[in-house]
Amino acid sequence: MTPTITAFERSPDRGRGLARDMRVRWALEEVGQPYDVRLVSFQAMKEPAHLTLHPFGQIPTYEEGDLALFESGAIVLHIAECHAGLLPEDAHARARAISWMFAALATVEPPIVELSMAALLERDKAWYGERLPGLRENVRKRLGELSRRLGDADWLDGGFSAGDLLMVSVLLRLRSSGILDEYANIANYVARGEARPAYRSAFAAQLAVFTAASKGE
Amino acid sequence: MTPTITAFERSPDRGRGLARDMRVRWALEEVGQPYDVRLVSFQAMKEPAHLTLHPFGQIPTYEEGDLALFESGAIVLHIAECHAGLLPEDAHARARAISWMFAALATVEPPIVELSMAALLERDKAWYGERLPGLRENVRKRLGELSRRLGDADWLDGGFSAGDLLMVSVLLRLRSSGILDEYANIANYVARGEARPAYRSAFAAQLAVFTAASKGE
Repeated sequence: MTPTITAFERSPDRGRGLARDMRVRWALEEVGQPYDVRLVSFQAMKEPAHLTLHPFGQIPTYEEGDLALFESGAIVLHIAECHAGLLPEDAHARARAISWMFAALATVEPPIVELSMAALLERDKAWYGERLPGLRENVRKRLGELSRRLGDADWLDGGFSAGDLLMVSVLLRLRSSGILDEYANIANYVARGEARPAYRSAFAAQLAVFTAASKGE
Repeated sequence: MTPTITAFERSPDRGRGLARDMRVRWALEEVGQPYDVRLVSFQAMKEPAHLTLHPFGQIPTYEEGDLALFESGAIVLHIAECHAGLLPEDAHARARAISWMFAALATVEPPIVELSMAALLERDKAWYGERLPGLRENVRKRLGELSRRLGDADWLDGGFSAGDLLMVSVLLRLRSSGILDEYANIANYVARGEARPAYRSAFAAQLAVFTAASKGE
């Protein structure tokens, strides 16, 4: 059965692939599972029909027959459990890859989002200049730790896994900050993720949505 | 094999059960799995031996024979997969419970931590009074959505699951803010979690660590 995911009708990142549907698209491409996309406007995201699918009124969601899921991490894990290719077969290696999935979303992403949100919402505030260095330092703390662990390996723990998929997705949100380039091995790690054919297909698909919406203006 | 988890030698929350080892203790108590605890000082958390276990130098970690895991969400999921009682047997209900696990850690917890950290680190700053209402509003946004979804149900989706365990754990961090009491059904939901025998055993165990450390002063 072909699953249906939701994505922004018009992504606020203007097609840079930073919205969270990208993570799910990438996972589906990695395992070769075709999917349908239903686009949702900002207004429709807060209406009852969508809130039934996603209690927090966000994208992406995932529908497959009777099953409806939300949270990109949970959806990627579900895809990884239903198909080969995103989690190791060995039980211990699989559990470790899941540690990296949670680390990406619960430990590495929050300071990155906090930095982005400050840039978006507090840039005009008197305190922005004073707060900014601390926000950047919080991100660097995590990236320094990640860089030490990664060392010269290609991926975080053995072969590419759903842990890498989420970690690269999270790190890509840092590109415009310039911080990524302070850690050569992390910048290369992110580039390896972006070079994967599945990433490129997913990226092209989300960009096509944004381009089509722009032409419709 | 008895697993070993790590916890703070002296928890910064002074035994209120808000450190992340509590989530793992609670899960282990729910499934009736005895465990050992190795206490770690703030200094030791940043040393190579601990960083091998936890790349971000935090607690908890989980060791079971050759397996070493980090991230409380991943550890709770591992426990739930190895024992009955924390995830439904039905595959769809299980996937939905995992959506709630990720929602707790990736969607609900970040604004709560941001509010706590501002109270801890920015209270003396000139901007604290101006930033505080927005931080509290970000938390209320999520709690309002959660409250609407929960309605008058006991738990988020059917019976108690690892999703509830993590959500209650995250919400408990709000108690001192007073925001929890603005949502009667959420306050009752949290109270139901705290009333579970497994929660109480876990709480007592972490409190005993803090009490023993205080007596040793």
